[in-house]
Amino acid sequence: MELDLQCYSVRTDLAVESKEMINSLEPAPIPGVVEDISQEDGIKITRLDVQNEAASQKIGRVVGHYVTLEVPELRKGDTGLQEHVATVFAREFEQFMQHIGLGPHASVLIVGLGNWNVTPDSLGPLVVENVMVTRHYFELMPDRVAPGYRQISAVAPGVLGVTGIESSEIVQGIVERTRPDAIVAIDALASRSLERVNTTIQIADIGIHPGSGIGNKRRGLTKDILGIPCIAIGVPTVCYASTIVNNAIEMMKNHFGSDSKQTGQIMGMLNEISEHDRLALVKEVLEPLGHDLIVTPKEIDEFIEDIANIVASGLNAALHEAVDPGNVGAYTH
Amino acid sequence: MELDLQCYSVRTDLAVESKEMINSLEPAPIPGVVEDISQEDGIKITRLDVQNEAASQKIGRVVGHYVTLEVPELRKGDTGLQEHVATVFAREFEQFMQHIGLGPHASVLIVGLGNWNVTPDSLGPLVVENVMVTRHYFELMPDRVAPGYRQISAVAPGVLGVTGIESSEIVQGIVERTRPDAIVAIDALASRSLERVNTTIQIADIGIHPGSGIGNKRRGLTKDILGIPCIAIGVPTVCYASTIVNNAIEMMKNHFGSDSKQTGQIMGMLNEISEHDRLALVKEVLEPLGHDLIVTPKEIDEFIEDIANIVASGLNAALHEAVDPGNVGAYTH
Amino acid sequence: MELDLQCYSVRTDLAVESKEMINSLEPAPIPGVVEDISQEDGIKITRLDVQNEAASQKIGRVVGHYVTLEVPELRKGDTGLQEHVATVFAREFEQFMQHIGLGPHASVLIVGLGNWNVTPDSLGPLVVENVMVTRHYFELMPDRVAPGYRQISAVAPGVLGVTGIESSEIVQGIVERTRPDAIVAIDALASRSLERVNTTIQIADIGIHPGSGIGNKRRGLTKDILGIPCIAIGVPTVCYASTIVNNAIEMMKNHFGSDSKQTGQIMGMLNEISEHDRLALVKEVLEPLGHDLIVTPKEIDEFIEDIANIVASGLNAALHEAVDPGNVGAYTH
Amino acid sequence: MELDLQCYSVRTDLAVESKEMINSLEPAPIPGVVEDISQEDGIKITRLDVQNEAASQKIGRVVGHYVTLEVPELRKGDTGLQEHVATVFAREFEQFMQHIGLGPHASVLIVGLGNWNVTPDSLGPLVVENVMVTRHYFELMPDRVAPGYRQISAVAPGVLGVTGIESSEIVQGIVERTRPDAIVAIDALASRSLERVNTTIQIADIGIHPGSGIGNKRRGLTKDILGIPCIAIGVPTVCYASTIVNNAIEMMKNHFGSDSKQTGQIMGMLNEISEHDRLALVKEVLEPLGHDLIVTPKEIDEFIEDIANIVASGLNAALHEAVDPGNVGAYTH
Repeated sequence: MELDLQCYSVRTDLAVESKEMINSLEPAPIPGVVEDISQEDGIKITRLDVQNEAASQKIGRVVGHYVTLEVPELRKGDTGLQEHVATVFAREFEQFMQHIGLGPHASVLIVGLGNWNVTPDSLGPLVVENVMVTRHYFELMPDRVAPGYRQISAVAPGVLGVTGIESSEIVQGIVERTRPDAIVAIDALASRSLERVNTTIQIADIGIHPGSGIGNKRRGLTKDILGIPCIAIGVPTVCYASTIVNNAIEMMKNHFGSDSKQTGQIMGMLNEISEHDRLALVKEVLEPLGHDLIVTPKEIDEFIEDIANIVASGLNAALHEAVDPGNVGAYTH
Repeated sequence: MELDLQCYSVRTDLAVESKEMINSLEPAPIPGVVEDISQEDGIKITRLDVQNEAASQKIGRVVGHYVTLEVPELRKGDTGLQEHVATVFAREFEQFMQHIGLGPHASVLIVGLGNWNVTPDSLGPLVVENVMVTRHYFELMPDRVAPGYRQISAVAPGVLGVTGIESSEIVQGIVERTRPDAIVAIDALASRSLERVNTTIQIADIGIHPGSGIGNKRRGLTKDILGIPCIAIGVPTVCYASTIVNNAIEMMKNHFGSDSKQTGQIMGMLNEISEHDRLALVKEVLEPLGHDLIVTPKEIDEFIEDIANIVASGLNAALHEAVDPGNVGAYTH
Repeated sequence: MELDLQCYSVRTDLAVESKEMINSLEPAPIPGVVEDISQEDGIKITRLDVQNEAASQKIGRVVGHYVTLEVPELRKGDTGLQEHVATVFAREFEQFMQHIGLGPHASVLIVGLGNWNVTPDSLGPLVVENVMVTRHYFELMPDRVAPGYRQISAVAPGVLGVTGIESSEIVQGIVERTRPDAIVAIDALASRSLERVNTTIQIADIGIHPGSGIGNKRRGLTKDILGIPCIAIGVPTVCYASTIVNNAIEMMKNHFGSDSKQTGQIMGMLNEISEHDRLALVKEVLEPLGHDLIVTPKEIDEFIEDIANIVASGLNAALHEAVDPGNVGAYTH
Repeated sequence: MELDLQCYSVRTDLAVESKEMINSLEPAPIPGVVEDISQEDGIKITRLDVQNEAASQKIGRVVGHYVTLEVPELRKGDTGLQEHVATVFAREFEQFMQHIGLGPHASVLIVGLGNWNVTPDSLGPLVVENVMVTRHYFELMPDRVAPGYRQISAVAPGVLGVTGIESSEIVQGIVERTRPDAIVAIDALASRSLERVNTTIQIADIGIHPGSGIGNKRRGLTKDILGIPCIAIGVPTVCYASTIVNNAIEMMKNHFGSDSKQTGQIMGMLNEISEHDRLALVKEVLEPLGHDLIVTPKEIDEFIEDIANIVASGLNAALHEAVDPGNVGAYTH
């Protein structure tokens, strides 16, 4: 049975989903994958370490540290919950920076990947528009910068189809000229599960890898390429139709439950084959007919604005000591 | 076996899809449903008459005349094809008006239903913005209106959640004050098939009925309510996740083909139960888990703009004799 | 000397500016015009009553009650000040409603005049988008509406050039069907002074008159036409180039001060002729050369969004007892 | 008399306006400034060479080659005229490239300066969005690029207040990584005359200098800094209020004409002092009162879209031999 998953084949960019799929096949713990889950006020936080190459092969994710916030209620548009998530995100992001050794004075370049004009791909540019940038004050009037602020710059490099240049090349050029200590890259992701779309935030120290994200970003933004740590913040905003179908069949299988004979009667071979094979089957059927589109919830305009505000507010509070998570909202518009 | 479909239960607003579903169960002709299909240059045109109440019950659509243009390639963004579709749409719409007895001088109020700020629901307001309105010239300087123009007005009444008023009430108030001879209402629809989303235009003389469209428009815009003919132009821009899944299972069933025993082995009972029951099953599984979202293709921003231009250009050419389908694009921006 | 000003000739929609111009010519009190000015925290509040026809002729404004908030600092984008202005506006608007006899249960239709797609004219539609509407709850589930809420609906009727219908006719149709107790109409205005643009809010019980506003709204929204009280909320967002020039010459005249002989040497006849004649002169020069454009500050995108939020927040607090001016911001996005 | 103008003191970014102002003071030819004016179909084309430092000092513009297209009717929104202007602009731009020695295979990086979210400053980003980029095809599949196409990339670097990085630094980083043969930078400018706003296009081989443009771009994009030719395309989209006033006084002076005694009676000393001194006077009066705002015509949303389309269409035709000026519109949306 094929268990080594590749990111593309399952079409998810979320480590928690990769882990979930492995576990659905093999409930046993995976050596080299350490997971810690906590719950608070409707937010599920999963801290997941992929510790070595063997674990990476098994789970289909790059070696690294992943923190995921899942907030199913986020879709309801409750302003109070949004502020709470921004605060928790700020705390987790601050710990994450400490975890990878970034001190309170490390300068950061925030990179908003994606396309302004494609709503589900506009998360990165929207966050860039809403974060507090301070680098120019440090450059132009260093004596007048109040304590508690870090040197922050932010760019939205655009997408290959619009610029003709890989966003990683643009970022590399800017890094070489402005010499930040670290990159924080924000990108819209694909999930295998519609319910995670616009309700999940993933932080990872792995940078951006070819094939992740929903656009075309072949070269990646990684420590190997850029020479500085690169934290990736991702929010799933889309699903492939085929993964919706595949996931629904999985849910139906679970719905009919443990009596595999009965489930087999209802679902035939669909009950028996691996998720991987079943997805291949679904794709084989849908693709030639033009049905394997990438989709996003109808309410995407509002979702994307809300989640961009959460990420921007959270980053402002996490990056600047002087910004209080309590009044986090005031620094963005 | 339950064959009388209701619009909501199958979650499609397209007559061609209702017909298709009935036919998948009963290949025999349906008495009182007359269909005429033609093909030209990548456009499939279906003219469908639901002639009586029995046929209406059977097919789950209101008695009336439906013309559907399906253009699978429309999604590729080819400007030339878009102009061709606008021209064909103009011709079909003109014939449609003649068919229901609207002469060249009948004044028309174009109603763009939906919500500016929800991209997949913004078709109506976008069309309103791009059609040529002339009513004010007829009112203010009737002597100076060139021949070949009809009296056209256009409104986007907004949605209940924003206005607190049913859009049908707003339209009724405007109709009573401005006395047009007919209504043309444009609305975004739901399809059961992702491939029809943003590639299909339906013209129908049935007006807008409660429960159609993707928003909340409970009271409807119909000849009964408004006292004047009401033509509905609909473009599917969204699907329910459950109908994507259900439709995919149908496609898998067809994929494995005519050997029902083998298909049964692969798909179990899913092969045997009716589409209606299967959809109920899918919904039963997805809904409690928050998976039965309404979704739209990732590229919706561009699609909706393109299709709004096609509909607006087509209407301009169809409604005004002086506007030539050849230079149809020049009247919108 | 010509002293009776007409609204158009001086190209202002603000009563305080009309008063100011008269006073620059005749410093004596105007019979029938009662003015009360107060200052609080950077907000100048002028309550002005035009009590009779003679006063109306003199001052060039319709008989009625005008309240104007002037906040020069509003242009600086300070969030705290914006919230404060919303609170003061809410208080003034509440008093205004009491003043004209509208009780706490009077239902209100908010009308957002103007054009979505012309930024300086988009104030009305933006406010409509951000006010809390409740009428549908009163209609659909009257038992479940919490106490402290009033029945509110809101429409953005569009502009004549887009709809082909006077906005007053659309509103009249909606009023006849939905029977509100009062209208609150929001419109972008023209000021004679650039400094008042985007820093001033005028409340008046006179409705909307032909020729006011920056668009074409010939028929007006008044108690005479609609049969119910009509409160107009206006914010100047534009100036004519000619009034900027004329106003600047006035300022230069004041700058050189009381020694009229010296000022006469510097400015010649420009110092002597009336404001009215000078404006005519400026227009005579600028118009044929295409220079008498209507202009708006470069930062209009941000200004209009900020001021729309202030007006919407203020209306929400003023119209619903249950909405606290303190947390006024939470009800809009 | 002070005749050496500095760009800032007269607040224009247009060479034709600097020339015009000098000539209003000294009608004699300026040594080292060569001007060639032609007219065709409502387009006035001025080719102006500032040949040496003395001329540069005199006229207040950098040494270089300037081509200006003035189209007063452009403001009327006539689609036919817009296409014609795009064609003429394409021809002039092609000649301009030849003039400065850029061959048909020189690769070009198009830089769209300015801010997406400030309408009058969004010209650059809008052009970037609408030009055809091809560099990625040359990089990824060089064998498959059709003849007649040049290697084009395009970026919108954002503004200092949003990114914290000078746009020149961002561009420099990208130039170092991608090694284009030339830069074409598009920027919104300030004009001293409202009538030139949105009706004028300037092409210059001088790059972008500190203080030009309507935003903050202190370091500039020049051949000295970047090591490659840098063509600037500028369109005035704003005016200072003080220059509107000053310009109007000039027009009034011209209006009253050659009898300087009479004009002196009407306008006093305003008739006698130099433009430079008069502007200082106007600024002295307006600035303290908050009246010296930068303004833009009310219709800026539509103007900016139209002119961005003209520039993008023209660039597409000028940069790619395979793109025919006749069907120039088809390559943008």
